[in-house]
Amino acid sequence: MKNIPYKLYLSEDKLPKAWLNLQAILPQEPTPILHPGTLQPLGVDDLAHIFLNESAKQELSREKYIEIPEEIRGFYKMYRPSPLVRAYYLEKALGTPAKIYYKYEGGNTSGSHKLNSAVAQAYYAKEQGLTSLTTETGAGQWGTALSMACAYFNLDLKVFMVKVSAQQKPYRKLVMQTYGAEVFASPSSTTDAGRKILAETPDTNGSLGCAISEAIEVSQTTPNCRYVLGSVLNHVLLHQSVIGLETRAAMDELEEYPDVIIGCAGGGSNFGGLMCSYMEDKLSGKSNPRFIAVEPVSCPSLTRGKYAYDFGDTGRTTPLLKMYTLGSGYMPHPNHAGGLRYHGMNPILSQLYDLGHIEAQAVGQVSVFDAATLFAKTEGTLPAPESSHAIRVAIDEALKCKKTGEAKTILFGLSGTGNFDMAAYEAYRNGTMTDFIPDDEYLQTGFDTLMPVGQ
Amino acid sequence: MKNIPYKLYLSEDKLPKAWLNLQAILPQEPTPILHPGTLQPLGVDDLAHIFLNESAKQELSREKYIEIPEEIRGFYKMYRPSPLVRAYYLEKALGTPAKIYYKYEGGNTSGSHKLNSAVAQAYYAKEQGLTSLTTETGAGQWGTALSMACAYFNLDLKVFMVKVSAQQKPYRKLVMQTYGAEVFASPSSTTDAGRKILAETPDTNGSLGCAISEAIEVSQTTPNCRYVLGSVLNHVLLHQSVIGLETRAAMDELEEYPDVIIGCAGGGSNFGGLMCSYMEDKLSGKSNPRFIAVEPVSCPSLTRGKYAYDFGDTGRTTPLLKMYTLGSGYMPHPNHAGGLRYHGMNPILSQLYDLGHIEAQAVGQVSVFDAATLFAKTEGTLPAPESSHAIRVAIDEALKCKKTGEAKTILFGLSGTGNFDMAAYEAYRNGTMTDFIPDDEYLQTGFDTLMPVGQ
Repeated sequence: MKNIPYKLYLSEDKLPKAWLNLQAILPQEPTPILHPGTLQPLGVDDLAHIFLNESAKQELSREKYIEIPEEIRGFYKMYRPSPLVRAYYLEKALGTPAKIYYKYEGGNTSGSHKLNSAVAQAYYAKEQGLTSLTTETGAGQWGTALSMACAYFNLDLKVFMVKVSAQQKPYRKLVMQTYGAEVFASPSSTTDAGRKILAETPDTNGSLGCAISEAIEVSQTTPNCRYVLGSVLNHVLLHQSVIGLETRAAMDELEEYPDVIIGCAGGGSNFGGLMCSYMEDKLSGKSNPRFIAVEPVSCPSLTRGKYAYDFGDTGRTTPLLKMYTLGSGYMPHPNHAGGLRYHGMNPILSQLYDLGHIEAQAVGQVSVFDAATLFAKTEGTLPAPESSHAIRVAIDEALKCKKTGEAKTILFGLSGTGNFDMAAYEAYRNGTMTDFIPDDEYLQTGFDTLMPVGQ
Repeated sequence: MKNIPYKLYLSEDKLPKAWLNLQAILPQEPTPILHPGTLQPLGVDDLAHIFLNESAKQELSREKYIEIPEEIRGFYKMYRPSPLVRAYYLEKALGTPAKIYYKYEGGNTSGSHKLNSAVAQAYYAKEQGLTSLTTETGAGQWGTALSMACAYFNLDLKVFMVKVSAQQKPYRKLVMQTYGAEVFASPSSTTDAGRKILAETPDTNGSLGCAISEAIEVSQTTPNCRYVLGSVLNHVLLHQSVIGLETRAAMDELEEYPDVIIGCAGGGSNFGGLMCSYMEDKLSGKSNPRFIAVEPVSCPSLTRGKYAYDFGDTGRTTPLLKMYTLGSGYMPHPNHAGGLRYHGMNPILSQLYDLGHIEAQAVGQVSVFDAATLFAKTEGTLPAPESSHAIRVAIDEALKCKKTGEAKTILFGLSGTGNFDMAAYEAYRNGTMTDFIPDDEYLQTGFDTLMPVGQ
């Protein structure tokens, strides 16, 4: 074994003091956020009607560094800096000359990177004098993370959880409740939006769109309350930059530099967070690593989507964001890609992809679970299905190195654990897992829901 | 915030190179292990018919340090050294002048300390030329840990999981299967022992005793196979000393010394592992900290049991161990204390308790979940019900300090996470959780099953 340790924990004094704002270093002007009625760009004051005051500022900020308040850093210290791991055992199993590193974000009770933004948003809500928050959750990581953050800052929280997910993942629901959140299977009978859908389709499994509508309705009818989100938006990407800043500091300590940086991408906050510091290098001409965003073939927003203005939600209630999208009405196949079943992609990442600074790959679900299972058996940790998309491509890159003999340095993001996703692993093992590759006709049903704006 | 970090990760080069064998520093001769028929002491060769060769040696070894093979240390590096955490946020919530530290063993996919012994036993099985192992699991931590270890060392594994537990914790079963283990709900129809019980009581929920009988039967009828255990025995305690050695090294680095050391105790391996280094100090007169083993009121082997020779299993098939026991036939209430529902206690710990070197406290389940929930909300991590017994007493000690104004240093073991125990948390939240305190008559039903040996 070499001198490089299996895993490197930075000391707590190396926890970043400021987030890195990718928006400030884009090679072009960021695309504005538009009002869906007037199609006019929205300013901070407009966004503050929807977002937290501080989130609204951050969403449009052009400051390169935004200070992380001490109370947020204090919470981060419960589980950060997270480890950078050298995948020695995976390398050995693959017989590759490549060096594989991964940044592990699953070592907290929420089991994913989502906590990084949840604690920031809960803190800003408290600072603003709010007493409660609402949100929706699909796969459950975000709801769990926000429950933990709200427990810490003594905020009430109502979580609308897509009904089928609440049924498939009862433990997720129970964890949120243990941290004090109220959890409603959506559609619920507690909102007008929910009651309307239940009246029309009593047997519905629910959808993210419906859960968002319910959460927004409650936030609007509750005093001192806001609805908050865990992905897609620029301020969420900003909070996740803590992943990439720590990764960079740890890699620097090991005197390593990645040739390729790989992350799974649903809304994009995990991948954007992981790669931010190296992207800064690339945009300033200091280096030229490859950046690969990995998405499921069933929901290929980057690889097969359109770069267009679109709603952030299926309920078509949000401002318009310019992004790679399959259309807000795209219905992703109910497979196990969980948190990656989102129709669009964060606007900054979309812009970087459009400019050719990021590559994207879509991978099939069965091959993803092949990779996940090999990873679990060799590296010990059971990975989240989402994160396993990045593992798949990291393994593919390492196997290419085996053929060519190159000792490339591969870095990927292990954004979470699969402990609450065992139904998916079971489907994989018993052979009932299938891949769904949408044909052009199917994709068109999503594109038909796009707004005819600026395209 | 003081100079002491929230959590301390020792660097990998400080991972212990040898386990510390408490048996070698006992102030008296260790009690011999007896053959249940002849009542004669068993030697290494006798034990090697039941245990792995190396485990048989370690079970009776009087060497103070036993080297940890490099391959085991290599595996340990996946998740060790584990962090020593200063519970700043819990201290603040309690308003105590006490300093609370905990050693966190839940940061691996098995979610508990069990992996420390699982990997050792799998390694020794491989070295011995075995190709498969069998075991039983109740709460599921041990089965999961052994599945991970067997996956790593390419050993086949059959796990007999108590039927009611397999039903209540389907995810546990699926994790084991993902790592390649075959899991049978016990009683199963694959063994004579299982078929016999099913014929007599088709609706049984299963029991650890039955699961052990099935696992032993399979190990005896399968070539190159052994049955292995995850607690109670001296060699398991030995492997868990890695917890205490790391804790000691980390506390030394922080220039801290505990006034009281607290661990939950089922079979005793977690508590014995945690406290080993400080017990050495105490036995050699260097210091005099308090040692508190915490057990559930429903299964009070130390606080209300007898110090007697008894079988290790309800099936009465093992050699006889001298230990604090409620009798191998004691039926613990099916509450949520999970891994603490064992009738006896490791012989070394029993001896130390008998000599007055260890205190014991039995705590009620509802008060344990009060502590668990407070811990989760303040410290972030959702604790295992078992570990929460230690949290309960740590909080009680910290609150005593609040009254007296003493700034004592409290150390406890957070042996695992509660991610797979959400049904218990739900029962707590919805008020259906109850405490079961056995009366003397109930305890007598267990004592009636004791062997009349050496008492």
